[in-house]
Amino acid sequence: MESLSLGIDLGGTNTSFGIVDPQGHILIKGKMSTTGHATVADYIAALQQHLLPLFEQVGKGNIKGVGIGAPNGNFFTGEIKFAPNLPWHGIIPMAKLVSEALGLKTTLTNDAKAAAIGEMRYGAAKGMKDFIMVTLGTGLGSGFVANGQLIYGHDGLAGELGHVIAVRDGRKCNCGRNGCLERYASATGIVITAEQWMAERYDETTLRAHDGKLTAKMIQDAARNGDAFALEIYEYTAKILGQTLADVVAITSPQAIIFFGGLAHAGDMLFTPVKRYMEDNLLHIYKDKVTLLHSGLPDADAAILGASAIAC
Amino acid sequence: MESLSLGIDLGGTNTSFGIVDPQGHILIKGKMSTTGHATVADYIAALQQHLLPLFEQVGKGNIKGVGIGAPNGNFFTGEIKFAPNLPWHGIIPMAKLVSEALGLKTTLTNDAKAAAIGEMRYGAAKGMKDFIMVTLGTGLGSGFVANGQLIYGHDGLAGELGHVIAVRDGRKCNCGRNGCLERYASATGIVITAEQWMAERYDETTLRAHDGKLTAKMIQDAARNGDAFALEIYEYTAKILGQTLADVVAITSPQAIIFFGGLAHAGDMLFTPVKRYMEDNLLHIYKDKVTLLHSGLPDADAAILGASAIAC
Repeated sequence: MESLSLGIDLGGTNTSFGIVDPQGHILIKGKMSTTGHATVADYIAALQQHLLPLFEQVGKGNIKGVGIGAPNGNFFTGEIKFAPNLPWHGIIPMAKLVSEALGLKTTLTNDAKAAAIGEMRYGAAKGMKDFIMVTLGTGLGSGFVANGQLIYGHDGLAGELGHVIAVRDGRKCNCGRNGCLERYASATGIVITAEQWMAERYDETTLRAHDGKLTAKMIQDAARNGDAFALEIYEYTAKILGQTLADVVAITSPQAIIFFGGLAHAGDMLFTPVKRYMEDNLLHIYKDKVTLLHSGLPDADAAILGASAIAC
Repeated sequence: MESLSLGIDLGGTNTSFGIVDPQGHILIKGKMSTTGHATVADYIAALQQHLLPLFEQVGKGNIKGVGIGAPNGNFFTGEIKFAPNLPWHGIIPMAKLVSEALGLKTTLTNDAKAAAIGEMRYGAAKGMKDFIMVTLGTGLGSGFVANGQLIYGHDGLAGELGHVIAVRDGRKCNCGRNGCLERYASATGIVITAEQWMAERYDETTLRAHDGKLTAKMIQDAARNGDAFALEIYEYTAKILGQTLADVVAITSPQAIIFFGGLAHAGDMLFTPVKRYMEDNLLHIYKDKVTLLHSGLPDADAAILGASAIAC
């Protein structure tokens, strides 16, 4: 019957996978470590071993294909290129390797694009033809959908909202340029804001009294408890994010922008000011037309569902 | 046989029209004034009169449909909404009015989107699936094509590159916001740059000696003659445009950006520095992949060809 899909979420630490039915239910799932394998071939062999019990349970003949979401994954080539957070370097023909090992047609894309397709198939973007998916994690990923299709661009690498210059001559980014949006609006960005402001505002003694390393989760908890400093950080983050969203709305004129990831859990605390700054900066023809939504998929399953949705 | 299209370029001053064959040849054309008609109905009646001889010549039965390119034209609704440079105000159901008057299926979009489709069908973007069209006229218009389709967005109003904020808190724009790209990179923008810099740099006497009003054409001619001040203006314009193009390349990852309009005639004088600033600001994965091209359509015919290309 070939109606099931295998979704693989290939992350820097763990690889999660699941067999998904056409309605978006994960029938069975599992995970393994991405690291600790001497070579890519060893990783593929371990993945194959982990998948055998899933194949036995649902019947491998019922699986129509495999979808992989991976950092720096390219839909057109099926390759993962120079992913800084994965254990392998250079260009890995991951779709080809998995397809050969499993004997199943395999499609690969980057994690944010997989999330966009997952939302369109099963989540908050069901029935939408024009929306933007934004993943707010360690970095900021995105997938743009127009006319009901994901925009891959000429080379499969479209949709790098995290590397739009949000602040001209702003913070140094890992990409080598300055002022990229993800240096402000991401878990990493929020911590940088907090650390910079603390260094500017507080004296040595206060800073020493501040015990241990700051995390985005700590700032989120503090903001939730009404901490003025944490709320000011959220306001600033919302301003940079809202301004930049207003600019990209002018490109694709989406019905909605859908957020996923740890920082998105801040909810209204972040998105009420994001919406305000976005609206303040929108060209009049777009005002009051773009809905900000939280992902419609459960956190633990979203990446597997997204990956499964690109299988064909 | 129904293989011909009628293209209408509805501009603020003139309305041009032509009958176009499937290969993009204009078989017969004409024009009339857009202004001087008491009502929209009078304008439509005049248009109908002007079109009669064209219909007689090619046989109206051979025309499959009408395409109109117009400022603020909406592809989805067929309406022209609040166009500041047209004689009629409010919302004009132009596609419906023309369709009823001529008895032909009529499609309408804005002029830059029509230009994009014209380039894809007949011009520099033939065979391309992912490109950006940029019209550099009085303002800056754009059309984004992804996966071989024009991006209309949720409401038909996508593709307002001219109103991306290029300079935060920059020049006041007619749209009511500040720093829009078209206040820098357009015929209007170039003149503003020149006037601002002259006011800053020269004394009253020198300014009074400068006879008459500055135009973008004068600046272009001066730059072509090697005038340092004019070349500095081009360099600055190229910087703002190149930086902003680098940001939007990260959204749609196009194969090419195609330029049309008076300012685009500056050629290498403008586009050599635009390319340099764009490349300097591109995320590494997009470097050396995006070609800057001049429109492949003759100036006088491009708007008619573009409009005819949306007829269906």
